Amino acid sequence: MGDDNSVFIGNKPFMNYVTGVVMQFTTKNANEVIIKARGKFIARAVDVAEVAAKRFLEETVEVKDIKIGSEEFENKEGKQVRVSIIEITLKKK
Amino acid sequence: MGDDNSVFIGNKPFMNYVTGVVMQFTTKNANEVIIKARGKFIARAVDVAEVAAKRFLEETVEVKDIKIGSEEFENKEGKQVRVSIIEITLKKK
Repeated sequence: MGDDNSVFIGNKPFMNYVTGVVMQFTTKNANEVIIKARGKFIARAVDVAEVAAKRFLEETVEVKDIKIGSEEFENKEGKQVRVSIIEITLKKK
Repeated sequence: MGDDNSVFIGNKPFMNYVTGVVMQFTTKNANEVIIKARGKFIARAVDVAEVAAKRFLEETVEVKDIKIGSEEFENKEGKQVRVSIIEITLKKK
């Protein structure tokens, strides 16, 4: 699956992400959409998945897979930092 | 599985939860531990799972299952509010 079907969660208004997910399934006719987030945005990714799947795409989309993991990166002070990541895959039923 | 094997994530110091998960597997010899969280604590639940499984229980424990969902409750103003939940099940390999 190309990155076209991924939605990265950040600090834009919440409904931007919900609309983004819904439009992948409707306007773009995607079979699967992957919602991705890191760190503090992980809770938001779950909110987006829940609201998109249950409120807007009710009965037509379900959670296919959820992966968690860690990424290491170097912060401004040159220290190695670990951050958690999540990938929630929604698919058409 | 009884609630004994569940760890609920809140705002106590982070390592309390990591230690709680690790001790379920070691001292209490559990085969599975479920890490549960709601709302903003969801990101923290993923952190706890990652740190416990990868740093402290390296190679002996893996993610078996991750569930997300929603709970409705009435807030102080009497309004129905939706909150996301997560349950991460770790198991011994």
